[in-house]
Amino acid sequence: MYKYYNLKEAVLTVIDNNDLQACSVHLTEDEQAVEILDQTRLPGAVEYLQLKQAEDMYDAIKRLAVRGAPAIGIFAGYSMYVLALHSDIAETWLFLDKLHAEGEYLISSRPTAVNLAWAVRRMLATADGLRDKKPAQIVEALKKEAIAIHQEDIEMCTRISEYGLSLVKPGDGILTHCNAGPLATSKYGTSIGPVLLGKERGIELKVFADETRPLLQGARLTSYELFKAGVDVTLICDNMASIVMKNGWVQACFVGCDRIAANGDFANKIGTSGVAILAKHYGIPFYTLGPRSTIDLNCPTGADIPIELRDPDEIRTMWYEQPMAPEGVKCYNPSFDVTDHSLLTAIVTDKGIVYPPFDENLKKIMED
Amino acid sequence: MYKYYNLKEAVLTVIDNNDLQACSVHLTEDEQAVEILDQTRLPGAVEYLQLKQAEDMYDAIKRLAVRGAPAIGIFAGYSMYVLALHSDIAETWLFLDKLHAEGEYLISSRPTAVNLAWAVRRMLATADGLRDKKPAQIVEALKKEAIAIHQEDIEMCTRISEYGLSLVKPGDGILTHCNAGPLATSKYGTSIGPVLLGKERGIELKVFADETRPLLQGARLTSYELFKAGVDVTLICDNMASIVMKNGWVQACFVGCDRIAANGDFANKIGTSGVAILAKHYGIPFYTLGPRSTIDLNCPTGADIPIELRDPDEIRTMWYEQPMAPEGVKCYNPSFDVTDHSLLTAIVTDKGIVYPPFDENLKKIMED
Repeated sequence: MYKYYNLKEAVLTVIDNNDLQACSVHLTEDEQAVEILDQTRLPGAVEYLQLKQAEDMYDAIKRLAVRGAPAIGIFAGYSMYVLALHSDIAETWLFLDKLHAEGEYLISSRPTAVNLAWAVRRMLATADGLRDKKPAQIVEALKKEAIAIHQEDIEMCTRISEYGLSLVKPGDGILTHCNAGPLATSKYGTSIGPVLLGKERGIELKVFADETRPLLQGARLTSYELFKAGVDVTLICDNMASIVMKNGWVQACFVGCDRIAANGDFANKIGTSGVAILAKHYGIPFYTLGPRSTIDLNCPTGADIPIELRDPDEIRTMWYEQPMAPEGVKCYNPSFDVTDHSLLTAIVTDKGIVYPPFDENLKKIMED
Repeated sequence: MYKYYNLKEAVLTVIDNNDLQACSVHLTEDEQAVEILDQTRLPGAVEYLQLKQAEDMYDAIKRLAVRGAPAIGIFAGYSMYVLALHSDIAETWLFLDKLHAEGEYLISSRPTAVNLAWAVRRMLATADGLRDKKPAQIVEALKKEAIAIHQEDIEMCTRISEYGLSLVKPGDGILTHCNAGPLATSKYGTSIGPVLLGKERGIELKVFADETRPLLQGARLTSYELFKAGVDVTLICDNMASIVMKNGWVQACFVGCDRIAANGDFANKIGTSGVAILAKHYGIPFYTLGPRSTIDLNCPTGADIPIELRDPDEIRTMWYEQPMAPEGVKCYNPSFDVTDHSLLTAIVTDKGIVYPPFDENLKKIMED
């Protein structure tokens, strides 16, 4: 029996380690539909969606009801199983044809989400490997594969959390930016995984959560997850990180990562590089946490990572009842920034902690 | 004839240097009321309020319809004149008694606003000096005094803007935080004064305006002022300052100041110290601009400046249609932070530019 964060109850509860339903993406109890916690409704409302139709699954990804690369991967796995389950085609080759079409349709909902395509194709490969079987047998195999994807993610998050927890001591203050917690992944999450794993073991850490403008993932999701889990969390505006560090309240920074280059430069949510510079100024260790799948040795440096620019209205008008800036004023709204490896104390992966020199040590961990 | 920023028209227009009505606080044309641009309604609506009653003046300060220390000082001057003008008391000693009571009432609207009390008391001293005159003569003297306060502020802002402009060259990118522009002062303002003075002279500067959470003064006020004045302004979230600097787009940072200690440490809007640390990291000069009245030689260091903590709901719920954080989650919401003098390139005052060593040079400029 493990004690971990149960999103469904929105409290820290004692549940079986294998209770996949405690995650933000899971199968319904009758295993007829994929169920997700609608992330767009948080923190105002805790609402679950049960999905059986490809169109609804497409829509859930598109409008970010499900977000976070690992969560999208898990969602894609279960979705493919559910679609196969409800297929009324008896002939295997026709059954597979339809499944391929539905898989490609799902992938098209968010073409840049690497994990989405990866999970759909893994499910299709499983199905294709059973071309000589009946659809019912393929459905059974798909269910197992989807659960495997989910369990592997839990395993990965647990390892990252374990390594991260080894870097801090009870009572430490952790500053985090954006959201890479249970909602975006499974079980503990990555960047706040050490905090939730610590909570489970009675090791209390204090968290300062940057609200993370413009989309407020820190306010809406991270502070929600930690608050509901009973963690001592303090929400701050992004521009308050400096004074919080100056006050001596932060012993380590934990952030996620979207892509790590071969030299250790990494892309993450906009504002991450600023937090890293502040941490260096105040002499605070700064860590990024993520699975090895985030490390891209084919990308030499951070300068080779393209930065997505988003809609200016996310800054000017989103969330607000009235416009917060003059109509038509220019905005610069990059989704990510690149943090230089010289600002990074270490990279916490599912296979261990990588210290400088990153170019050498990232290669080693990928060869293992 | 000078060309400067006319808030009333919300465009850059050619008007007489003495047209005080171009400022956000002024007398109505018939000189019967004080007129202010309601800062709480920007940028959604440009609305002027004409005030004659002490209760309405009190309310305007209290709810931040007029804000910014210099603007509040100018407002207090005109308010005292208008209250005296509409007094129906013929006996001088009774007339003065009532004026004193109204002045103290105005001061009580925002007890921490140093300029408010200073301006009210300056007006009362002028009135008290004419105890042997008729109320009508006192009213005339109060009008002159109020105009003098306003003109001195314009003079001060102009000098600061002139010194600031000498620090940059055409085409430079300026990053600014919060708002110390015309709305908060008079004419050019302080921190964005060099940009507006430059605009007047055909020297184009580019501005990156931090939105400045939680109250969004950068988005609502600074970007509004600059956009309407035809300046090339780009609004960014506070956490985007790092990438904008990294991109090579910023040649100088200009920020305001609320209080400067004897050693050069200074308090300003929350987030200022973070901008200063980023500027140092990227090798960009960082300046604070303000009148000498902001320098407090009786305050030895930044550690002696008290920091006001504000309502957590400014972070959790203000501006939003739905709560942006779980109800009851803890927030830390300091209104200001202190920037260490070691991060400061120079202090731009109305009497010249002060460089390190600040302890020596601040004393000198105050002795002049």
